[in-house]
Amino acid sequence: PLPAKPPSPTNPFASLTIPETVAIHDWVSSPALNLNLTAGDKAFISDNYIYRIEAYRPPKKDAIAYLDNPEQTSPPEKYAHIVIHHGSASEPYVQDYLVGPIPISEKTAMRKLTEVYHRDPIPYSARGFTTMNEIAPLLLRIMPPLAEATEDLFGGVVRGLPNDTIVGGMAAPFSFDGSFRRGWISWRRNVPGPWLHPVNFFMYVDTTGTDPEQWKLLKLVYNHQVFNTTDEFLAAYRNGTLKRLPDRPDQDPSSVDWSTRKRPQPHSLRDLDHLPGPRSVSFGGVRFRVDRALQYVSWMGWGMYFGFDRDMGLSLWDLRFKGERIIYELAPQEAMAQYAGNDPMQSTTAWLDRYFGMGSAVRDMMPGYDCPHEAVYLPATTYNYEGSITRERAICIFEHDPGRPITRHTGYAAGEMGATLGYQLIVRSVSTVGNYDYLFDYIFQIDGTVEVRLSASGYLQGGYWEPSQEGYGTAIRDSTMGSLHDHVINYKVDLDVAGTENSLLFTHTATEKITQPWLDDDWGQEVIQQKISKTYIENEDDALLKYPANFQGGYSLVNRESLNRWGVPRGYAIHAGYSPIHNTVVGSKRLLNNANWARYNLAVSKRKDTEPTSSSQWNLHLPGAPMVDFHKFFDGENLTQTDLVAWVNVGTHHLPQAEDSPNTRTNLAASSFFLTPLNYFDYDVSIDSRNAILLAAP
Amino acid sequence: PLPAKPPSPTNPFASLTIPETVAIHDWVSSPALNLNLTAGDKAFISDNYIYRIEAYRPPKKDAIAYLDNPEQTSPPEKYAHIVIHHGSASEPYVQDYLVGPIPISEKTAMRKLTEVYHRDPIPYSARGFTTMNEIAPLLLRIMPPLAEATEDLFGGVVRGLPNDTIVGGMAAPFSFDGSFRRGWISWRRNVPGPWLHPVNFFMYVDTTGTDPEQWKLLKLVYNHQVFNTTDEFLAAYRNGTLKRLPDRPDQDPSSVDWSTRKRPQPHSLRDLDHLPGPRSVSFGGVRFRVDRALQYVSWMGWGMYFGFDRDMGLSLWDLRFKGERIIYELAPQEAMAQYAGNDPMQSTTAWLDRYFGMGSAVRDMMPGYDCPHEAVYLPATTYNYEGSITRERAICIFEHDPGRPITRHTGYAAGEMGATLGYQLIVRSVSTVGNYDYLFDYIFQIDGTVEVRLSASGYLQGGYWEPSQEGYGTAIRDSTMGSLHDHVINYKVDLDVAGTENSLLFTHTATEKITQPWLDDDWGQEVIQQKISKTYIENEDDALLKYPANFQGGYSLVNRESLNRWGVPRGYAIHAGYSPIHNTVVGSKRLLNNANWARYNLAVSKRKDTEPTSSSQWNLHLPGAPMVDFHKFFDGENLTQTDLVAWVNVGTHHLPQAEDSPNTRTNLAASSFFLTPLNYFDYDVSIDSRNAILLAAP
Ligand SMILES: [Ca+2]
Ligand SMILES: [Ca+2]
Ligand SMILES: [Ca+2]
Ligand SMILES: [Ca+2]
Ligand SMILES: [Cu+2]
Ligand SMILES: [Cu+2]
Repeated sequence: PLPAKPPSPTNPFASLTIPETVAIHDWVSSPALNLNLTAGDKAFISDNYIYRIEAYRPPKKDAIAYLDNPEQTSPPEKYAHIVIHHGSASEPYVQDYLVGPIPISEKTAMRKLTEVYHRDPIPYSARGFTTMNEIAPLLLRIMPPLAEATEDLFGGVVRGLPNDTIVGGMAAPFSFDGSFRRGWISWRRNVPGPWLHPVNFFMYVDTTGTDPEQWKLLKLVYNHQVFNTTDEFLAAYRNGTLKRLPDRPDQDPSSVDWSTRKRPQPHSLRDLDHLPGPRSVSFGGVRFRVDRALQYVSWMGWGMYFGFDRDMGLSLWDLRFKGERIIYELAPQEAMAQYAGNDPMQSTTAWLDRYFGMGSAVRDMMPGYDCPHEAVYLPATTYNYEGSITRERAICIFEHDPGRPITRHTGYAAGEMGATLGYQLIVRSVSTVGNYDYLFDYIFQIDGTVEVRLSASGYLQGGYWEPSQEGYGTAIRDSTMGSLHDHVINYKVDLDVAGTENSLLFTHTATEKITQPWLDDDWGQEVIQQKISKTYIENEDDALLKYPANFQGGYSLVNRESLNRWGVPRGYAIHAGYSPIHNTVVGSKRLLNNANWARYNLAVSKRKDTEPTSSSQWNLHLPGAPMVDFHKFFDGENLTQTDLVAWVNVGTHHLPQAEDSPNTRTNLAASSFFLTPLNYFDYDVSIDSRNAILLAAP
Repeated sequence: PLPAKPPSPTNPFASLTIPETVAIHDWVSSPALNLNLTAGDKAFISDNYIYRIEAYRPPKKDAIAYLDNPEQTSPPEKYAHIVIHHGSASEPYVQDYLVGPIPISEKTAMRKLTEVYHRDPIPYSARGFTTMNEIAPLLLRIMPPLAEATEDLFGGVVRGLPNDTIVGGMAAPFSFDGSFRRGWISWRRNVPGPWLHPVNFFMYVDTTGTDPEQWKLLKLVYNHQVFNTTDEFLAAYRNGTLKRLPDRPDQDPSSVDWSTRKRPQPHSLRDLDHLPGPRSVSFGGVRFRVDRALQYVSWMGWGMYFGFDRDMGLSLWDLRFKGERIIYELAPQEAMAQYAGNDPMQSTTAWLDRYFGMGSAVRDMMPGYDCPHEAVYLPATTYNYEGSITRERAICIFEHDPGRPITRHTGYAAGEMGATLGYQLIVRSVSTVGNYDYLFDYIFQIDGTVEVRLSASGYLQGGYWEPSQEGYGTAIRDSTMGSLHDHVINYKVDLDVAGTENSLLFTHTATEKITQPWLDDDWGQEVIQQKISKTYIENEDDALLKYPANFQGGYSLVNRESLNRWGVPRGYAIHAGYSPIHNTVVGSKRLLNNANWARYNLAVSKRKDTEPTSSSQWNLHLPGAPMVDFHKFFDGENLTQTDLVAWVNVGTHHLPQAEDSPNTRTNLAASSFFLTPLNYFDYDVSIDSRNAILLAAP
């Protein structure tokens, strides 16, 4: 692609480079700081080690001052955000720090980062995972003695060898408030697509503390029978009182291709499918510009910087359209998936996938499949306790023709008849968190609209199908089910509409019954029609919002002091797209206060540097006392002509069905919202486009 | 494109050919029938003349018998549907007839078609329009004497000459029950985009009966002042008591380019917009097949026949996927647009655009703009009182890459990692009804899903902006507003899921609070989670439906006696897409009973040949006593394992904004629903696709 012209020579939202990360790592590790650190790749959880190093986003005031006047202003000072696992403390804990300014100099200092959290420090029981096999020592104490029984009952043994025939997966949350770390393990066949091969065998284990010797089995459940010890279970197995599951012919390990992406045999060949499908080609060269070093992209009047972080991956910054900043920050915040079921795993699962890291879960996309052939890929680097990793194809960018005009009219008079092509720029990043694939799309349009769309694919978190699961999902195989769950994904949308001083407008339509003087005889003077009411929501406490019934109206951010040419406050609307839903379940202990944003379709709060995000890596395991308690943002502050941020949800109610196997289809598992000009302009600016036609009578 | 292989050598849903139409016309016009017909192009409304000739769709039983066994079965007998305006009757009326079988033979007969209507005959006051200038004789009596005043007040005169500077547009309905034909005329500047140039001058006229000499002005409204006669108005104008509107500099006839599609001067050039945008190319040739003569299309396991008629244009028939019929008929039924405002026009407008004919309003699409370059176009022929007309580019068909995989997973185990391209076949037809453009899209997907999408563009029906219009729309120019309105468009979806014997399943999710034996210490035994309930809606009276709040569940048609391999009844779900709304206003006299389908998101009734459609051409002018009263379909019949039809709505609440000028944007003015397999298959059949990748570890 052609080189871009970013507004400033520095991207204030850029990730750290690997040399920067190394320098910070070395500085933090220096004996002078006395942190007693172990190298991450050698550390055990009872050591002190650096879990994360990444860029910390600058105060908005500083960033804007720079971006608005880069020639006369210095870039904001750069700080790094460091997470240290203090595993060797007498009471182990996790602590967040800020280190800076960087590059390292004599001015560089380190301080605790606490102002963005609602508790301090971070309980060790909520800490991030290191190896996924952290609990292996415990499982290797529990499982081998059960091998005879498990082999007999469901053909699975664990001896800690590569040919172990079952694998355990632990559900979350691990804790309520950080005082313990315990979880349910579901055992699954060790075959491709293991999530679809549960064996109806569960364990509740205690892994509190840093000494695996102290970890223990608390409970064991097989086929709905609860045992407190392995001995109890083995006794029941041996004395014949154990109620066994029926045989499962479809789970024969030699015929598990159904849970892969291999084409089933036989399968029907679709007519002409041996030919390549249509391919998008920009015969004059691609029309977007990319600054790969700065991670800046521009297209058709749009321009934006990219950021990337461990927790949520790609974020977009300083989005401008036709020369004006429209969005300061557009970034996913958290992805919730809350399950239901009649087994210990599904009924207790409420994932918040930020814990796993949407950024660190980004893997290289498959060119030509994940994105069209013409797409341009950008890399992203994330750091974990073992070091830095760069994915070369973490982000893709391509121009897309949606196949319909953005406006058109078949008219008769001169100048009426024509059409404008509705080109889009799509920016995409895909994260695979275990079984699930999230496709994050930002779809920019030539009229100033952006559609934010999340699609999902990948594997279901399957359950063991039996009649007692009725109501909690659907059989997708003889003895496998897809389990009922809700996805809700939250985005931060820091709209700055004609400046940062904005107000929250609620537009609502309702029916009125009025009389009109010019009507009478035939119809009577009475008219029943609709009418718009406009209200400014003044207080944060009133800004936890659901879409009105029948979508009669909606929400927008407007600048009441900036009018368009026709006297209307300039605004941007937040418009529902596909699947505009919020979480079904309210009040579950396992999601008590750590994802309260999911209760609404959207919410609007006064923007603060101390409220940078609606969640945190650690919220997953702290439903009772989260690091970030979203409701605390809503503390009665006034929303009139101030810097506002919208927290907007997408999601799907996932009622699984046979067609979720082997992988969920993105066409139905998609949800979106639009950010779209609302009297922001004086007319539809897509009329600027040269890729348009105007027909005249001959 | 390559030739297709339709299941039968005849399209039972085909339109009449022009020779067939001529033959029927001649047969009906023969003196033997004694209908006293005048040739349509010479007829006046006080004559008898043929208004319409078109194919009548065969009884479903006959069509299915033929389609399922075309070798051994004859095609259904063909009948034509004739509409005659009996203008010379002492009490003029309109009558629908069936003529057939055709081709004309000795067996051919003519009978009244009444069984599909709820009244008989059709009142002449509800008749179809012939020339749009039907009321010209009246207006040319009224307007010239007002020329001095209208020229002075708003620079507009009407003398019946081509340079008339204002034009009148009449709002509908014209009648309540057929007993009168009266309407409000709004006067607009005679410039391109006249709908955006109202002058705040209205007339209520009576055009009842067939003698224009009897037609008369009933009321005249200027700037909210009501006059019963032109004399009253002129007196007020002359004696200075008339309250005048302020000057309207933006309406200067020499600077009205803003209501055209011409690029405004100056306008900003978008970066790289001088280059062509991405273009879709099927390098191996297009992958769909078309039988142009039969109007049959197939693609990737899908196949369908096209029908086309005057009222609603394109319809799809006998839609099969992977060898099984899924939908017998998929066809738009009616398009409602109900307005609100503080003037006589907007507050009384409730369009039903079937009156104007979505089929006869089809005009040739603009290749490369309305559809991509590769699109294949099919023609359509419609008949009106003047004769037949064929549009060569009435329908377009193209394969589309939506730019994202339909399924994908980034896995580790063998067979887990891959992606399948989500190709689509899009079938489109565009109808322009006066100011408004409707884009009808059918988006077929390789998993068996079809998205039915309606997008809108074209011009607003504008009002005169002044402060008293607050709440009824938004200023889009100094003195022009876009008026608040709802669009609701109804589709007939005759799903036949694994046969015609289907049931209506309502799936609903709600929160439950239960206890589980395996839980206790840390969290307590209580679990709050969601649960699915499934109910069969047994009675039509319970099948007038809205989407559940928060879309917690939905509706599907299933065959309870046909199970997939996992024991689940095979079904197809009706899934909400973009803008899943219904009409806001209930009870308005101008839409009292002629569009009751618009009150719901969808409805399901027992299918009948005598209930072929939810509306009629004449419903617009008969809100109090419509030809087709949708609620009468819902008469308590049982819906269990019988042939069902779903009536599904799309729509938009159109709260106009500056960006609707000059034309509404299709990206936001779009609404859709999905028809998608729901345990219809045993797994996701898109896995068949060859346009897929499967990655293995090296
Ligand atoms: Ca606050
Ligand atoms: Ca803001
Ligand atoms: Ca009925
Ligand atoms: Ca049916
Ligand atoms: Cu899901
Ligand atoms: Cu509209």
